[in-house]
Amino acid sequence: MIAAETKAVATRGFATHGPEAKFEAFEFTRREVGANDILIDIEYCGICHSDIHMAKNEWAAFMPTVYPLVPGHEIVGRVSQVGDSVTKFKVGDAAGIGCFVDSCGECPSCAGGNEHYCFKQAAYTYGGTEMDRVTPTYGGYSNKYVIDEHYAHTIAAAGDLSGVAPLLCAGITTYSPLRRFNVGPGQKVGIVGLGGLGHMGVKIARAMGAEVTVFSTSPAKEADARALGADNFVVTTDPENLTPLAGTFNLILDTVSADHDINPLLGCLSINGVLAVVGLPHSPANIHHAALIMGNKTLAGSLIGGIPETQEMLDFCAEHNITADIEVITPGQIEEAYDRTVKSDVRYRFVIDMR
Amino acid sequence: MIAAETKAVATRGFATHGPEAKFEAFEFTRREVGANDILIDIEYCGICHSDIHMAKNEWAAFMPTVYPLVPGHEIVGRVSQVGDSVTKFKVGDAAGIGCFVDSCGECPSCAGGNEHYCFKQAAYTYGGTEMDRVTPTYGGYSNKYVIDEHYAHTIAAAGDLSGVAPLLCAGITTYSPLRRFNVGPGQKVGIVGLGGLGHMGVKIARAMGAEVTVFSTSPAKEADARALGADNFVVTTDPENLTPLAGTFNLILDTVSADHDINPLLGCLSINGVLAVVGLPHSPANIHHAALIMGNKTLAGSLIGGIPETQEMLDFCAEHNITADIEVITPGQIEEAYDRTVKSDVRYRFVIDMR
Repeated sequence: MIAAETKAVATRGFATHGPEAKFEAFEFTRREVGANDILIDIEYCGICHSDIHMAKNEWAAFMPTVYPLVPGHEIVGRVSQVGDSVTKFKVGDAAGIGCFVDSCGECPSCAGGNEHYCFKQAAYTYGGTEMDRVTPTYGGYSNKYVIDEHYAHTIAAAGDLSGVAPLLCAGITTYSPLRRFNVGPGQKVGIVGLGGLGHMGVKIARAMGAEVTVFSTSPAKEADARALGADNFVVTTDPENLTPLAGTFNLILDTVSADHDINPLLGCLSINGVLAVVGLPHSPANIHHAALIMGNKTLAGSLIGGIPETQEMLDFCAEHNITADIEVITPGQIEEAYDRTVKSDVRYRFVIDMR
Repeated sequence: MIAAETKAVATRGFATHGPEAKFEAFEFTRREVGANDILIDIEYCGICHSDIHMAKNEWAAFMPTVYPLVPGHEIVGRVSQVGDSVTKFKVGDAAGIGCFVDSCGECPSCAGGNEHYCFKQAAYTYGGTEMDRVTPTYGGYSNKYVIDEHYAHTIAAAGDLSGVAPLLCAGITTYSPLRRFNVGPGQKVGIVGLGGLGHMGVKIARAMGAEVTVFSTSPAKEADARALGADNFVVTTDPENLTPLAGTFNLILDTVSADHDINPLLGCLSINGVLAVVGLPHSPANIHHAALIMGNKTLAGSLIGGIPETQEMLDFCAEHNITADIEVITPGQIEEAYDRTVKSDVRYRFVIDMR
């Protein structure tokens, strides 16, 4: 036992101990680096809105928070140690970790590259447990992570990694539905909401060759939307602005988590058009069947993506020079960043410098 | 003008003159057979539930009925005359007509074989107008129809045509979503509701190679469901019956037009599963985004199908010896058939013998 303990990886992180508590320094150990594991020295970790929900126990109804909580699942860093059987990484490589760090590896979901839907358990990067269902997982607001190489991603992007971090959640969340529904040249794509997710959606849809329109309640965001690559911008607070758009979009990606009526968006879809939702509004949507039947329209949900697709997304973004627009902060600024994120006062993602 | 009038096709049909009126004999003319037209001597016409809605003006809110109304869009018969430019048919051929008889032929929808979504107008087989937006269209409760050959279908099935008639609406309505979402061997398909649409869905999904489960509120329909080819039968009135089915269906085709909660059906979908709806309940569906996001699930609407897909469906059904299960009636029994259809007392489609 003493030998094993000495090989465990001493880690320094930042944890919250309750819904109202402030983040504090927190020391813990990661498991010993196994044959298939790599040790990543974390450089940057993005702040996802779900970090805030978990820190404040706002998802208590379906995923009650266990404290202490070390959030963070938009993780990038450098490999500092590799297990004997590791083939995908060598020391010094850039590496990334997304929303989950393990799964059974054998069920139909895992076999199909949908590890996030593992029939047994997808081990969340933080706030969950390892596959033993006992050992708590701590996230990327920390300086080290030990992970099976299968669940870590290679990063082809050169140089500074800070803007890559948000790709591991915001990037794959928007990339997956855009890819699944075959977005490409000649298509019209709408992106609803210009936040952490939406701004990635604009960049990725544009890189896929689509004509992109941003739907926003904030007229002030038009300049940003166009700078990010949007061809058009529509203010949704006046329903009349949507009238000329009826029947024109192949795909609309709705990233908004605030309650809102999706029926006007369905009306903007072309025949065979798809409304893909990735946000989680509090209230259910109210949809008349006719809004889908007339025009063979589809309402689809999408949740992050599996390991192969996340790697594909990272490679796509590297190829197209896509990173997130970020503000880098220190660990001491987490509370301030949370407050500003809740107020949508961030362009477009906070990233913590963990170096 | 006299010459033209003499070439118009004298037609005898059965019309209703108001929401409460009984069907009466009604004489009118079809247009002269043009170069691209064929004249079909109608043998059988199915009774679709939408005929009843139209006859009783129950869709007044969005499609008010213009009387006199000659319903019927599940039409089969024999070609008795062909225009000079007709290539697809010769006199004596079996031919079918579905829900629409004309469109612009030039817009993106028409060019893509989705004539039912013509940007200008899909001319409904009855209760609408021809492309001039003036001349009323009268349906298949009649003895003759003049139609551009492009909008008529060849029928490969040999012998009696009565069971083929319902394929032109009930068949394509169920075939289209089953095909669009790639139903095939190794897949589990649910069919919700065992009526005119549902019984076609069972036959077609089975012929595509899927394992088929019928969801019904009527335990009494189990024997019929299995006789039609269903592998399993589940009574939906007890929610506990659905518990063991959670996460298991690749596609569920919901044919029910009565109000019902679709959330238990979404729960039965596997990862990447699709709930396709073809019925039009009065009340909107209430869906939480999470029910779609968790599992990458899709809610899709579907409306009949275009000309190429309808022909594909007819050929598929001929190849697999699929026809509808029907009760043949005389024109004098239309009211009785309507009453019984409203009470779901039909196995599974009434077809009027127009010979």
